[in-house]
Amino acid sequence: MSDHAFDRAIALSAQPDGSFLGRTSPDYGNMVGPYGGITAAQALNAVLLHPERQGEPVAYTVNYAAPVADGAFTLHARPARTNRSTQHWVIEMLQDSQTVLTATAFTALRRETWSAAEHTLPDVPAPADVALPKDGPRVEWVRRYEMRFVQGGLPAAWDEREETLSRTQLWVRDNPPRPLDFASLTALSDVFFPRIWRRRASRVPVGTVSMTVYFHADAAHLAATGTGYLLAQAQAQAFRKGYFDQTAQLWNEAGELVVATHQVVYYKG
Amino acid sequence: MSDHAFDRAIALSAQPDGSFLGRTSPDYGNMVGPYGGITAAQALNAVLLHPERQGEPVAYTVNYAAPVADGAFTLHARPARTNRSTQHWVIEMLQDSQTVLTATAFTALRRETWSAAEHTLPDVPAPADVALPKDGPRVEWVRRYEMRFVQGGLPAAWDEREETLSRTQLWVRDNPPRPLDFASLTALSDVFFPRIWRRRASRVPVGTVSMTVYFHADAAHLAATGTGYLLAQAQAQAFRKGYFDQTAQLWNEAGELVVATHQVVYYKG
Repeated sequence: MSDHAFDRAIALSAQPDGSFLGRTSPDYGNMVGPYGGITAAQALNAVLLHPERQGEPVAYTVNYAAPVADGAFTLHARPARTNRSTQHWVIEMLQDSQTVLTATAFTALRRETWSAAEHTLPDVPAPADVALPKDGPRVEWVRRYEMRFVQGGLPAAWDEREETLSRTQLWVRDNPPRPLDFASLTALSDVFFPRIWRRRASRVPVGTVSMTVYFHADAAHLAATGTGYLLAQAQAQAFRKGYFDQTAQLWNEAGELVVATHQVVYYKG
Repeated sequence: MSDHAFDRAIALSAQPDGSFLGRTSPDYGNMVGPYGGITAAQALNAVLLHPERQGEPVAYTVNYAAPVADGAFTLHARPARTNRSTQHWVIEMLQDSQTVLTATAFTALRRETWSAAEHTLPDVPAPADVALPKDGPRVEWVRRYEMRFVQGGLPAAWDEREETLSRTQLWVRDNPPRPLDFASLTALSDVFFPRIWRRRASRVPVGTVSMTVYFHADAAHLAATGTGYLLAQAQAQAFRKGYFDQTAQLWNEAGELVVATHQVVYYKG
């Protein structure tokens, strides 16, 4: 095992009954409990480490059913359907025998086909030309990422001045750098601070309830990306009666869309 | 029960063990097997009809694990976690004891909050000013929808002339009209023909593997929409090694975003 904090955080131990045992990591702590992205990566890792897995992740949906408490958890990953070159997984995370997370994953053996880009890398300055934030992070997990905000960083003041646009763009990578893989891509898919904070310049209570990740990267793209930066872009589409959605994209520096990801988030007030 | 074809198609009968029995509907037949949208609506209906359900659907992800054969199916819907005002569901559809579909749903009691639109209704002509297609539909399910293509209808010729944009916009509603509800909104979320057909002007084999629906509509929006049209817009972001993704929105005529929906689709060649 690498001694990178991310590898320590997603480490799981296989149990005799086929389940996996893991622990939350203080390195990825949020204000209360763990960062949602690391929890999503831990749950996907139960599929990645599963002896019956075939193929690479293509689609993954994770539902945050209850707050994850600091400490141990159990993961069950079941191949609900195995086809010739694809597989459908149902995943559940438990603490004290209670479900705290449900998820589904789709893995497939990918092969060469006609391919094309459509949503291309926005016109942004190179990572080296974008400054690091001046303020130190308020929560631990943010220290695990190098974030260079191109547009739409945290509001300069929490003065409740409403904006009409929630878009954020940042160059981001693990801190310290770590070669990209499916687990770290999953964690990075949740890297955005809540869109409603950006719209309202107010830190209203929030919590992601469901996140979906579509992987456009395969092993070759991961290798080409290596420890390079990803341009991460997110925007909300509607805020309505306690829930908003977010649509997001992650491109590598070569301009390849490696992930399209979406989530729906609870908000208060 | 209404005698509308949609209500007949999604009808389920509760079994003594808590599961539901349903049947595919020839009214929603696709080239082979049923339309994916009706299958998604049937699976969600197992939650909507469940005696333990609380709240309305907010997020729903359905995974097509294997082709659904014409005939009977069994649906299991389990409330994996019930909180004070939210609930997380795990759903599975079986035929001959084999899993053909997995799904997760999140339901919640919604309440008034600060709300805002961000992705607003595109500037399009009114439904009455958009012509119906001249050609009759090739498959049965398409007859169940009134579709008025504003932009990006089926290619005029299957001449393999590549386009650079996969966007489609159409006004759509049930045919005959039927008041909108969560089940019909789910089916409508899958109404788009495959983006790759539009990009390549070629009917390559395709199949949705996973679809996620975020409901921004609550009961009041559904009532206000009634039997009116929805403006449905879809676009792909990348086509890569056998899979492309699609991001889509449905607005009602009043301009309210009622659904944000995404899917990943297998394609051949």
